[in-house]
Amino acid sequence: MPIITLTSDWGTKDHYVAAVKGSITSQIPDAVIVDITHDIKPFDIISASYVIKNSYPHFPQGTIHLIGVNTEASLEHSHIAVFHDGHYFIGTDNGIFSLVFNEIPKEIIEIDIIQDTDLFTFPSKDVFVKVASQIIKTKSLEGLGNKKKGLFEKKLLEPVVLNGIIKGSVIYIDRYENIITNITSQIFKEFVKSRPFKIKFRSMAYVIKKISQSYGDVEPGEKLAVFGSAGYLEIAINQGKAASLLGLETNDSVNVIIEE
Amino acid sequence: MPIITLTSDWGTKDHYVAAVKGSITSQIPDAVIVDITHDIKPFDIISASYVIKNSYPHFPQGTIHLIGVNTEASLEHSHIAVFHDGHYFIGTDNGIFSLVFNEIPKEIIEIDIIQDTDLFTFPSKDVFVKVASQIIKTKSLEGLGNKKKGLFEKKLLEPVVLNGIIKGSVIYIDRYENIITNITSQIFKEFVKSRPFKIKFRSMAYVIKKISQSYGDVEPGEKLAVFGSAGYLEIAINQGKAASLLGLETNDSVNVIIEE
Amino acid sequence: MPIITLTSDWGTKDHYVAAVKGSITSQIPDAVIVDITHDIKPFDIISASYVIKNSYPHFPQGTIHLIGVNTEASLEHSHIAVFHDGHYFIGTDNGIFSLVFNEIPKEIIEIDIIQDTDLFTFPSKDVFVKVASQIIKTKSLEGLGNKKKGLFEKKLLEPVVLNGIIKGSVIYIDRYENIITNITSQIFKEFVKSRPFKIKFRSMAYVIKKISQSYGDVEPGEKLAVFGSAGYLEIAINQGKAASLLGLETNDSVNVIIEE
Repeated sequence: MPIITLTSDWGTKDHYVAAVKGSITSQIPDAVIVDITHDIKPFDIISASYVIKNSYPHFPQGTIHLIGVNTEASLEHSHIAVFHDGHYFIGTDNGIFSLVFNEIPKEIIEIDIIQDTDLFTFPSKDVFVKVASQIIKTKSLEGLGNKKKGLFEKKLLEPVVLNGIIKGSVIYIDRYENIITNITSQIFKEFVKSRPFKIKFRSMAYVIKKISQSYGDVEPGEKLAVFGSAGYLEIAINQGKAASLLGLETNDSVNVIIEE
Repeated sequence: MPIITLTSDWGTKDHYVAAVKGSITSQIPDAVIVDITHDIKPFDIISASYVIKNSYPHFPQGTIHLIGVNTEASLEHSHIAVFHDGHYFIGTDNGIFSLVFNEIPKEIIEIDIIQDTDLFTFPSKDVFVKVASQIIKTKSLEGLGNKKKGLFEKKLLEPVVLNGIIKGSVIYIDRYENIITNITSQIFKEFVKSRPFKIKFRSMAYVIKKISQSYGDVEPGEKLAVFGSAGYLEIAINQGKAASLLGLETNDSVNVIIEE
Repeated sequence: MPIITLTSDWGTKDHYVAAVKGSITSQIPDAVIVDITHDIKPFDIISASYVIKNSYPHFPQGTIHLIGVNTEASLEHSHIAVFHDGHYFIGTDNGIFSLVFNEIPKEIIEIDIIQDTDLFTFPSKDVFVKVASQIIKTKSLEGLGNKKKGLFEKKLLEPVVLNGIIKGSVIYIDRYENIITNITSQIFKEFVKSRPFKIKFRSMAYVIKKISQSYGDVEPGEKLAVFGSAGYLEIAINQGKAASLLGLETNDSVNVIIEE
C-alpha cells in the first residue's frame, strides 16, 4: 500500500486537511495517509523543513511526502516533485526543499499539470494529490513535467568555527521547550575532540561543561546539553521548560568554547 | 474498505476520540477512519456545518460521515441517519443537517436502536458506530428506524440583494484568519456582472475594488478579496492575519456595492 | 491487521509522532495506527493513565498500546511490556501502569533489547516499536526479557467513606471543563442506596441533590451530576464550563453526604 505523508500549516480546525485526505481517498483508495504535522506556524518554512528532515528518513523507501506550506506558485516558486534518498517529495519550490536536503537532488521536476477548476485553487488538493497518484502509477517522476537543475535557495545560518569557538544558533524550540541548535554532533566531535569545553549562551549567564547521555543525568530542574535523537546539540532542563527559563529564542546564539 | 469520517467538538486531549475509534475498530475491523476535525468549538454547530459542507464532497461516494457535535438526543432533536448526494451522515437533528445541505434530503431515518448500557451514554460511541456498522452491511438505511420528512431547521443569514448592494456577512474565520463570507461566487457574478464594484466592511474604513486570483496578486501585508476553494467570497491579507488586522468577526457585515 | 495505539505527551507540532509512525510503518507495514492522544501535559502520568484506562477497553483484544509519557528509563523505572485484560501495553514503569490497572497484571516483562544507536535515544521509537514488532510475530511477550513481579506503585487518592460521607476528589477535567471525580457509580450505589443525599464541593457554596441521566435534564447553564460514560461521578454544567464557573481544580474535594 502506498504511503503518503502530509506536512502543512493548515491547522486542524478547518476543512483543509479533510479536503486533501478526501481527495487522496478518492483518487488513491489504497493509500495509507500519515500526518507529519499540520501545526506548522503559517508560512514558517524553516520549522517545516526541520520537522520534515527529522521525519522522512523513518518512513519506508518509496514513501510520498506532500508538503503544504506556502504552496502558492509564482514565476519564481514553481510546484515541483523531487526524488531523493529513496523518497518522493511534492511541494512548492519556495526554499523549503533547499532546507530539507543537504545536497541538490538529482531528480527535480517542475510540475506541469493543468488544474480543472476556475475557482481560486488549493494546490495541495488540486495539484499535489494528482501528482502523487501519477507517481504511484509509474513509480517514477515520468510525465510530470520538465527537469529542473536547481532549487530555490534559502540558507540557514550554519555554525562557524573561529578562534577556538563554535558559533552556533538556535534553530528550533520543541513542545517541551527543549532548545535545538544547528551544532551537529559531527561538528562538535571534530572540533572539540577530547578537550575540555564550555557551552555558553545569553552572554555570560549560563554555562554547561559536559554532554549528558539522557535528561535523567541531572536532577529535575537542572540544565543540561545532549545530542538529541536528530543529532543536533540540544539545551534542555530535566522535566522543565528550557526556552522560557533560560530566555532563549530561535536565532539566539549558542557557542562552544574550548577551555585551555 | 468502508470509509468513516469523524467531525466533532471532542478535542484531542481526552479519551473521547479514542473510545469512538476503538469501537469502530472493534465493530468494523476493515474501516478506514479519517478525522475531519475534533477542534470544533464546543456546541458550535454553525462552524461544524461549514467544515462538513466543505469536506464531504471530496470523499468517495458511499463514505459514512459521523457527526459528534451536540449529540444528546431529546424529543425535539432525534438521532438520525441521512443519505444524500451519495454519502451517508449520522448525527443528531439539532439543526446541523439543515445547515450542511442546501435542500432537504430524500432519505432521512429517525434512528431506533436500543443502547445496551445503563450508564450515561456517549451517543457517538454507543449509537452512531452501530448504525455505521449496519449501513455498511446493508449498503442502505434499511432497518434503522422510521422515515422522517424534514429536518430541524436552523437558518444562517443569507446574503440579501437590495438597492444595488449585496448585503452579506462573515460566516467563518479560518486558522490563517482569512475571513469567509456567505457571498457565493454565483450570487456575486449574477449581480455584479462586469460592472465596477467595491467591497466594504467595518463602515467606511476598508474598501476592496477587485477580485484577485490568488493571495500572491498583492504584496505581502496587503488586503485582497478572492473566491476561496469553497466558492465563497473571502477577505484576506497576503501572509497576514486579516481578522485581527481588519477587526472583523463572525456575523459582521460585508457589502458589495455597485459603483456607477 | 495488527492495531497499535499511541498515547503520549509529544504534542503534534514536532517530528516525534511522525518519527514513531514512520518507524512503525517501516517495521510493521500492515499495522493500523490509532492515536489515543498526544496532548497529555508533559510528564503528566496521572492524566495519561486516566485517558488510557478509558480508551483501551474499546479496542479489540490483542491491540498493542504504546505509551510515550516520561519514557526515560532508569534503575528504578525500567521499560516494560505488559499483557493484561487481552491487551498488550508497552511503556516505562514510572507509575503509569499502576494507575491504569486495578490489579497487578500477571504478565509483566522487563524489556531487554539493545538499542543500535549511540545518539541520545528516543525510547518510543528506538525500543517500543521493536517490541511491538516482536509481540506481533510471537503473539506473546516471549523473548522480550525477564519476568517482573510488580509495578512501580503510584497511588491516586481513593475516595474514603467516613461518618456518612463519601470523601472524594477531582481527578480529571475534560475539554468541556466537565469535572470528573474519583467516586465510581459502584461506591456511590453501595453507600447511598436509596437514601437522600447531597453532593457538596467548594465548602458550602454549591450543592447538587440528584443524579441526572443526561446533561439535557437541566436547563442550559444549570449544574448537574451524572455518572459519565467511564462510570465516574461527574459534575457538569449543561453547555457550560463547569471547572471555571464552579472554581474546581484537580485534587479539590467533592463529598457525598447522606441527608437524614
